[in-house]
Amino acid sequence: MKGSELAERVLAGDRRAVARAISLVEDGSKDLPALSAALYPKTGRAHTVGLTGSPGVGKSSLAAMLVQAARARDRTVAVLAIDPTSPFTGGALLGDRLRMQAHATDPGVFIRSMATRGHLGGMALAAPEALRILDASGKDLIVVETVGVGQAEVEVATATDTTLVVVSPGWGDAVQVSKAGILEIADVFVVNKADKEGADDAARDLRNMLRMGPKLAWQPPIVKTSTVDGSGVDELVDAIESHRAHQQESGQLEEKRTRRVLEEVKGMVAERLRARVSELLAQEADGGVAADLAGRMIDPYRAADILLERVSSPSERGA
Amino acid sequence: MKGSELAERVLAGDRRAVARAISLVEDGSKDLPALSAALYPKTGRAHTVGLTGSPGVGKSSLAAMLVQAARARDRTVAVLAIDPTSPFTGGALLGDRLRMQAHATDPGVFIRSMATRGHLGGMALAAPEALRILDASGKDLIVVETVGVGQAEVEVATATDTTLVVVSPGWGDAVQVSKAGILEIADVFVVNKADKEGADDAARDLRNMLRMGPKLAWQPPIVKTSTVDGSGVDELVDAIESHRAHQQESGQLEEKRTRRVLEEVKGMVAERLRARVSELLAQEADGGVAADLAGRMIDPYRAADILLERVSSPSERGA
Repeated sequence: MKGSELAERVLAGDRRAVARAISLVEDGSKDLPALSAALYPKTGRAHTVGLTGSPGVGKSSLAAMLVQAARARDRTVAVLAIDPTSPFTGGALLGDRLRMQAHATDPGVFIRSMATRGHLGGMALAAPEALRILDASGKDLIVVETVGVGQAEVEVATATDTTLVVVSPGWGDAVQVSKAGILEIADVFVVNKADKEGADDAARDLRNMLRMGPKLAWQPPIVKTSTVDGSGVDELVDAIESHRAHQQESGQLEEKRTRRVLEEVKGMVAERLRARVSELLAQEADGGVAADLAGRMIDPYRAADILLERVSSPSERGA
Repeated sequence: MKGSELAERVLAGDRRAVARAISLVEDGSKDLPALSAALYPKTGRAHTVGLTGSPGVGKSSLAAMLVQAARARDRTVAVLAIDPTSPFTGGALLGDRLRMQAHATDPGVFIRSMATRGHLGGMALAAPEALRILDASGKDLIVVETVGVGQAEVEVATATDTTLVVVSPGWGDAVQVSKAGILEIADVFVVNKADKEGADDAARDLRNMLRMGPKLAWQPPIVKTSTVDGSGVDELVDAIESHRAHQQESGQLEEKRTRRVLEEVKGMVAERLRARVSELLAQEADGGVAADLAGRMIDPYRAADILLERVSSPSERGA
């Protein structure tokens, strides 16, 4: 399949083409720039939602419930599950995905796990590209599910229009929540497993912590959900749509998206230059920067200066 | 205090100088290159240990126990606690640090929380610099405690000679452990809260998962500890020292350290170039790359190409 044909088929919403395009992103394929050029003008229609929270709070089940709720409102939906790629477990995440099989034959639903195998910038740069492919393919709602609450996951989950932070009664007390540094990033809080003891306490703790923080134009609502009995999902979808409406009315949506894509571009530039530095180091004869650094003849700052000089003057490289 | 005097006092092990030097790292001070040049030749003596694991598994208490154990063996020790800096909670981590006050007057112990306020490269670049300061100040053992199991925390915790991954019986089942992607990074596993029910199960699950993985020259031991009754700490210190000995004998220690500092230098170069790109974008008149990108006239790859071209040819910037 030629690049232009792939782009056309993605724009037509062809599942196989979308899957193939995301694989190209995973691999960091050389065909991405052409694909990106063809798809980018057609993006910006989808509402992207990031789902983050500690392992075990039930993000996968919640994502499945969001799919159902979106379909009930006649929206098309995609789920992109970020896969941490453990050589020990391989398909652990695929097990979760099985819960989604109910939607396997629904053309309005696209579900995909994503890892980064060759993408230079890791998931922080790969995920936004995948989101744009799903956006260009015509999905109304795109849910990104991340695995943990670390910086990389948080980065991916916040590179969306609406970020959901999911906690569960068993997860930990308020101090643990705040330690994880995720209070700041939530547009909507979800207390999942609301059927379990302690859910009200968790919601109250969150409310109290939010009260301690700065006054915000958008006060993140706290929604209790249960993936066992399906309660709270409609409220959650309403909260997501309220947040989108708030952002659109305030002009923040476009502003935030522009800021995001600029950060992404800066990251792309930095990664390419980093790759160039790696090349320079690999080409070094014995006694170069790497050896001097290992022998503590020069310190890291000096080494960075030397390499910065070399990488900034590509014309002098051959001299 | 002049830079050269500060370096001299750090090398003499002066507490206040060490604290001041780490503050310079946090702030991304302009004095860092000179400080680094003076200290770097004197580094490489300390054994650095990274402590990572989910919030709530007891890393802070474990760090306190390691301090005690190291002192009992007549080793000087520093603890560097990575602070995620939440505007909501501010001093949440300082509460934990109180547990360490027992050592406040012991000159053989240095404890410090660290945030990044102005450091360009975030914690991934700031932490190794702080470690070198502590190393140069003469501490035998340096423990880095991180808050979560996200990529950034894992990066910091693995940028050490020996990485401890801490779990606790309540933390989650084996699948959750593997999902977090931390099996691969552990040199030693710690099942903390061994006094609680489920500790044996957690240890067994870890053992089984390790069996499923690749055969390694160093098989990460699994040590059960309890910070309540202090059990297991001696085994843990032994495991840490065995790992160090293994690395030294195999030559991996120096090799790993050289690889680490090279990665750090690459990161420094990339961050400086990223800052240069930000400057370029900030200097743009209306209708530049940012506007074209927002208006979807050019796509992210094209934008990166343009900026890469500009940043790589600084001499042409004024043209």
